Amino acid sequence: MALKAKVLYDFHSENPGEISIAENELVTLFSEEELEGWLEGENSRGEAGLFPASYVEIIRDHITSSTNNNGFSSPKTKTQTPSHASYTSSDSQSQRGLGAGSGGSSFHTSQGSDDDWDDDWDDTSPAADAPQGFGSSPPLYPVTTSLPGRGSAQQNQQQQAKSSATVGRNLNRFSTFVKSGGEAFLLGEASAFVKDGDKICVVMGKHGPEWQEDPYPFTCTIDDPTKQTKFKGMKSYMSYGLTPTHTNIQVNRRYKHFDWLYARLVERFPVISVPHLPEKQATGRFEEDFISKRRKGLIWWMNHMISHPVLARCDVFQHFLTCGADEKAWKQGKRKAERDELVGANFFLTISTPAVPLDLQEVDSKMEGFKTFTKRMDENIVVVNATINEFAHKQVAGFKKEYQKVGQSFKLLAQAFELDQQAYSAGLNKAIAYTGDTYEAIGDYFAEQPRQDLDPISDLLDLYRGHLANFPDIIHVQKGALTKVKDCPKQEGDLHDRCNIISCATLAEIQHFHRTRVRDFRSQMQHHLRQQIGFFQKITAKLEDALQRYDDSQ
Amino acid sequence: MALKAKVLYDFHSENPGEISIAENELVTLFSEEELEGWLEGENSRGEAGLFPASYVEIIRDHITSSTNNNGFSSPKTKTQTPSHASYTSSDSQSQRGLGAGSGGSSFHTSQGSDDDWDDDWDDTSPAADAPQGFGSSPPLYPVTTSLPGRGSAQQNQQQQAKSSATVGRNLNRFSTFVKSGGEAFLLGEASAFVKDGDKICVVMGKHGPEWQEDPYPFTCTIDDPTKQTKFKGMKSYMSYGLTPTHTNIQVNRRYKHFDWLYARLVERFPVISVPHLPEKQATGRFEEDFISKRRKGLIWWMNHMISHPVLARCDVFQHFLTCGADEKAWKQGKRKAERDELVGANFFLTISTPAVPLDLQEVDSKMEGFKTFTKRMDENIVVVNATINEFAHKQVAGFKKEYQKVGQSFKLLAQAFELDQQAYSAGLNKAIAYTGDTYEAIGDYFAEQPRQDLDPISDLLDLYRGHLANFPDIIHVQKGALTKVKDCPKQEGDLHDRCNIISCATLAEIQHFHRTRVRDFRSQMQHHLRQQIGFFQKITAKLEDALQRYDDSQ
Repeated sequence: MALKAKVLYDFHSENPGEISIAENELVTLFSEEELEGWLEGENSRGEAGLFPASYVEIIRDHITSSTNNNGFSSPKTKTQTPSHASYTSSDSQSQRGLGAGSGGSSFHTSQGSDDDWDDDWDDTSPAADAPQGFGSSPPLYPVTTSLPGRGSAQQNQQQQAKSSATVGRNLNRFSTFVKSGGEAFLLGEASAFVKDGDKICVVMGKHGPEWQEDPYPFTCTIDDPTKQTKFKGMKSYMSYGLTPTHTNIQVNRRYKHFDWLYARLVERFPVISVPHLPEKQATGRFEEDFISKRRKGLIWWMNHMISHPVLARCDVFQHFLTCGADEKAWKQGKRKAERDELVGANFFLTISTPAVPLDLQEVDSKMEGFKTFTKRMDENIVVVNATINEFAHKQVAGFKKEYQKVGQSFKLLAQAFELDQQAYSAGLNKAIAYTGDTYEAIGDYFAEQPRQDLDPISDLLDLYRGHLANFPDIIHVQKGALTKVKDCPKQEGDLHDRCNIISCATLAEIQHFHRTRVRDFRSQMQHHLRQQIGFFQKITAKLEDALQRYDDSQ
Repeated sequence: MALKAKVLYDFHSENPGEISIAENELVTLFSEEELEGWLEGENSRGEAGLFPASYVEIIRDHITSSTNNNGFSSPKTKTQTPSHASYTSSDSQSQRGLGAGSGGSSFHTSQGSDDDWDDDWDDTSPAADAPQGFGSSPPLYPVTTSLPGRGSAQQNQQQQAKSSATVGRNLNRFSTFVKSGGEAFLLGEASAFVKDGDKICVVMGKHGPEWQEDPYPFTCTIDDPTKQTKFKGMKSYMSYGLTPTHTNIQVNRRYKHFDWLYARLVERFPVISVPHLPEKQATGRFEEDFISKRRKGLIWWMNHMISHPVLARCDVFQHFLTCGADEKAWKQGKRKAERDELVGANFFLTISTPAVPLDLQEVDSKMEGFKTFTKRMDENIVVVNATINEFAHKQVAGFKKEYQKVGQSFKLLAQAFELDQQAYSAGLNKAIAYTGDTYEAIGDYFAEQPRQDLDPISDLLDLYRGHLANFPDIIHVQKGALTKVKDCPKQEGDLHDRCNIISCATLAEIQHFHRTRVRDFRSQMQHHLRQQIGFFQKITAKLEDALQRYDDSQ
């Protein structure tokens, strides 16, 4: 009998050899053996190929837990982008002291070294094109929130996990819960040294748990990127000048640096919604439109980063924002971030909660409410985004065309009138021709306007679609903890405490999401309306100018 | 060999039995015999039926003038509408003292009497539906400018026309020239007693010959029509209250009265462009839209009538405007108008010209210029009208829909946000919902706007299309005179004088057309722009109101 597996999450194939699978679909496995985190099989459409092992649950007649599907015991989970994978291998290499050695000829062999920072590894490499950006669809997270090859120390820790835990593992049921480290933490398997500086405080606010505010808020500007070359002009890339206000020193970063940072943050903070980076793009990277769009996207991303009390302060982000041109300092910080122990399960060790534990029943209800909210918001902003983009398109094409056609027809009228050489007609003819010009100009105004007041809303919606794509996993982690605790005997106070920590962090993140959402949407809607008002005033002024010509022509 | 005829003007069949024919088309005639002004034949598309004899020229191998095609010697030219025909017959009847005798039972038999004024003859009668209105296409004029059955005295006059005229008749070549009476006048065949009050002065103005201004200008209001009934409610009609400012007494007129007046004016003034009446309509005469549209059309028509120095002052129009409810007085004036001798050829007897005759070369060049002008204006306003109507349609349908879709999507956003019960979100949610309402309202504004600022332009263009449809015939009359004079020996001073009269009248009419055109288009364009400005200001105010909600919601 063929071995079957049930698909837990949608997976869209992005490379040759992979096949797409859909949630709840049944797939036939060719073998139970994982190949670096991938399984081979056939989907219901008869396509054969690879898909991530963590996206499916093998169906067995009798319930047994299979170590094959245990993300923790399977050290080599394939990460979504080879870049992350290369960091993984570079870790061990650099630990073994194999760093250094850059140069043209050593490109490929040095890809795994720290020096890959300066090499040709770039966001153009085909396998790196997996969209993680605003517009990408979930879930990349069963993979990206997994803990790819975190040093052997941690793995040993996990392998040494007490098998005496009162509540058994249920590795498949809450895959994200497991992969995020939520389960490990809940079961008391997380352990790491947490310095005071690493402490993350959840405080009780007016509306429930919230992240303690950043006492030293700052902002950060992103300049228009400049094109840089290396290897005597053989390779070129765009460099963004970032100037955070708390240092006021500009640092230069490439998109791949943002990408690296993003990967660090995602593995570091299991219940924090790290904003998605603007989309990657294989071609046209140096085209003006793309550059401007990516910069706008990075500005949105940066604003979300610095307004998040936890993300804004975290070491890896600060290193990214403040480390200057000193190569050595940069590599040191980079290595430190990559070896950070306080990722995944250990993240929860850094949380300090309000004195009074939460009522888990209430938490559950809040989580349910939020789940409903995110589902609806996700559905509705898809509609809003489609409508706004269509409206923008109509203005650029249809509205412009209509006004221009009216303008042209007025000009035709003026042209006919000009055939009459009566002096008293001349003024009117000019005024009508001018009205024609006016309507053509109004057509142009309509075509230019969406960039001012619809595109920003669309960008905002894209960013929020990214957040909304993050939340199902965050909700999963909290739900997983809650479910475990429900099954748990009363005496397991530690389990309750740890569930409280996860819940506090999750609710604080939800609170932050709402606050940011209200702030962002308020300011974008205001911006939109102000722009629209200015737009219609501009049209009015133009028409008043045209009207004036008729008075003058009397 | 089948007898062929060349089509001189487009004719569009409007009744069963008629066929459409196009200018320059060759048609096959079944017989050379006219049937009350109609010929039977087959057009190039193989359709067989009737068409007006005056619209075609019979092709003969040798040039002979056929009395069959002479509008004057063929007393029964079919008029476009039976209503006019009935007046014709009523003339002879009333002359024979057969008037009076109204009442339900005598409807059909009394149709020819003066009392048809009160009977059921109405613009619903199918044969009366021939469109003469703004939207109708030219040329009805070879027919309507003909002189249907004007008393026997005049016909005798024409039949007694001197055959000794130096320049021969060329009846087919300038059909309109002949039918308008232009040729008869030029050949000295017109004769009638012209009272001083009937004199029409052409004076030399700054820009050439022009009609002497009306020393007593007036205006006339047209009230919303009221529905009247007669025969105990069996029949109903709309009655328009007209109040001219020079009497300030309201008179009540039906559409058919306008129609009667129009027919009088067309036969009375061969080189004056009588504005077309708004379209007739067989069904829905009592529907609000139609009533409002017809009233608007009649107001336009009236404005053109009263701003024309000749039309405004002429007896029949004054009778129409000032004759009250006195049945007897009305009939008297009506009969007088119908028996007016100063129609067609005799009209030119009423013209007094400036002392210095015009340079006919210069006149010719002016006429050529005007011909080019009208052709271009006609072509271009067709485009303008189509564009404006399409633009109106786009606003009513497309623009409205786009804004409403945006409005609805904002409301969807607000609905999603309302699922979050956070107090700090409530104000924003309301503001976004209000913005949604605002966009829906703006959609409605767009849908309502064309009625304010595009429809009036469209109405104006329709009116001018009517004028432009009149001018080819007017030009024909002048051209006909000029051509005759060119062939004429120098000694024929009278011919020159009469050509000068025709030219002066034509140029005065052209001058009037230009002045009216400049006045009308200036004021309509100003109106349009003012309305557009008001429209965009209204949108701006609405958006400002929406923006205010965000400030309030902080």
